[in-house]
Amino acid sequence: MNKEDLLTKAEEINAIIYDFLPEGDAYDEQIVSAMNYSVQAGGKRLRPLLMQESFRIFALDAEDLLALQVFMTAIECIHTYSLCHDDLPAMDNDMYRRGNLTTHAKFGEAFGILAGDGLLNYAYELIAMLMQRQEGEALKRSAAAFAVLSQKAGYRGMVGGQSLDVYFDEAGDAEGKVDHLDYIYENKTAALLEASLMIGAILAGASDEDVQIMEVVGKDVGFAFQIRDDILDITSTQEVLGKPIGSDEKNGKITIASAFGLEDAERDVRRYTNHAMHYLQKLPFQTEQLKEIITYLIDRDS
Amino acid sequence: MNKEDLLTKAEEINAIIYDFLPEGDAYDEQIVSAMNYSVQAGGKRLRPLLMQESFRIFALDAEDLLALQVFMTAIECIHTYSLCHDDLPAMDNDMYRRGNLTTHAKFGEAFGILAGDGLLNYAYELIAMLMQRQEGEALKRSAAAFAVLSQKAGYRGMVGGQSLDVYFDEAGDAEGKVDHLDYIYENKTAALLEASLMIGAILAGASDEDVQIMEVVGKDVGFAFQIRDDILDITSTQEVLGKPIGSDEKNGKITIASAFGLEDAERDVRRYTNHAMHYLQKLPFQTEQLKEIITYLIDRDS
Repeated sequence: MNKEDLLTKAEEINAIIYDFLPEGDAYDEQIVSAMNYSVQAGGKRLRPLLMQESFRIFALDAEDLLALQVFMTAIECIHTYSLCHDDLPAMDNDMYRRGNLTTHAKFGEAFGILAGDGLLNYAYELIAMLMQRQEGEALKRSAAAFAVLSQKAGYRGMVGGQSLDVYFDEAGDAEGKVDHLDYIYENKTAALLEASLMIGAILAGASDEDVQIMEVVGKDVGFAFQIRDDILDITSTQEVLGKPIGSDEKNGKITIASAFGLEDAERDVRRYTNHAMHYLQKLPFQTEQLKEIITYLIDRDS
Repeated sequence: MNKEDLLTKAEEINAIIYDFLPEGDAYDEQIVSAMNYSVQAGGKRLRPLLMQESFRIFALDAEDLLALQVFMTAIECIHTYSLCHDDLPAMDNDMYRRGNLTTHAKFGEAFGILAGDGLLNYAYELIAMLMQRQEGEALKRSAAAFAVLSQKAGYRGMVGGQSLDVYFDEAGDAEGKVDHLDYIYENKTAALLEASLMIGAILAGASDEDVQIMEVVGKDVGFAFQIRDDILDITSTQEVLGKPIGSDEKNGKITIASAFGLEDAERDVRRYTNHAMHYLQKLPFQTEQLKEIITYLIDRDS
């Protein structure tokens, strides 16, 4: 697994999820343009990728691909809405992301808010349309996946992590933030990665026990991935990273790497990675490809 | 039906929906406080009320009250999130609503955004938790109700109407706005009222045909209700209305009443109301109480 492989995979995922994006008409072209611009602005498509790999591990037959594709699109819509809203002036106030104008920078602040709202709602709209066509076991699986997604995205998940992060920043409470970094990482970053791996397993009909293993793996991957991000912000060069380094420090952002030092941060990355691999080892299935992806993501230099 | 009856009903609905609101713990008390503050800031609870009345019309047995209560709470969470976001500085920039500080005015702009996100997501989280416990016919009904709610709340519904409204205002395109007022009213206001009446019927096991009748009635009620609002903003007194009159004109808001005159607006209210009553008449059920509520809402003087 190398960078090119991952880019190829992202392209394959784009081919799936772009098919599910809304099509605008004369009345809603403004909001649909802003929603689709946000999704199509790129990214590694990490969450749909992990979901797809998890599905492949557990799916003895690959029957219900429609459900998988709908949930892949839904989780990317949710991830994208969170970026839209995080970039707003009242939050991180970012004008660029991956070299493109952020949604509010391109469409105005009101549409930055509305495009995020539209995407969050659309994620569930897609799931609802899917579930209306299903029955029996397929419907039960979708209901379980829907429950995981909505919980991991909400006030006990991603929104909760982001809220506590903002709260300590606004209060200027650096000590409180350091004390709660684990909670913030777990919810702001890890929760959606947990959901990705869990939902792939659920839709493939995995046992409750195996879904729980994927939750543990997702949490580990979330922490390792985020801490690698923090480390790269300190150690990389702008050429390699493709964005200004030291931006966390410049923005006064407290991270595990900045609060506890690079050595501890590297040790944490190893610890979380080993833990994830150990859990994957428990599964009597083919997990090699998922392990390769995780290893690449966590060892990456940009 | 008079104002006191409606207040009593709102209190009864509060007793139901407050039970379903999230409970905060040490980690999420910040976001949960902002979310619950927004919901508990009051209101007529019109959407849950209409849903409940519609359910009563079609429910031969009142078995699945849990589903009704979950959807009543969910639609009020969605309505409340839309107010949270509409009140933000980048949108209407309102500091007060019903005499209370708006969410962003009380908790800061970031939490105004996050509380809205949390509430929108929570609406679906509640529905997912419900659906996980259901099976068979009950699950199918919830899936249908979920599909209606998500569609009416999204880019083809409430978010779409709000987006077009904002778009014309930002473009300073008064003519475009007047040409699209019907679309804006239908989606920004009527869509959630349609959803309320449709979902009550769906959960009670009404036929597809009867659900469609409730959609038509919801649309009519939405238009009549919104146009009455516009008229009151021009003709009422501050004492009766409880908020400054003429605020639409002051804010340069174009409404059906301001664009086409009070006489046309009154005629529209009558037309939509008669149409709604005519459709309700088609139903071989007890619709008297719903008619009384609609009549009161549309004839109200504040």
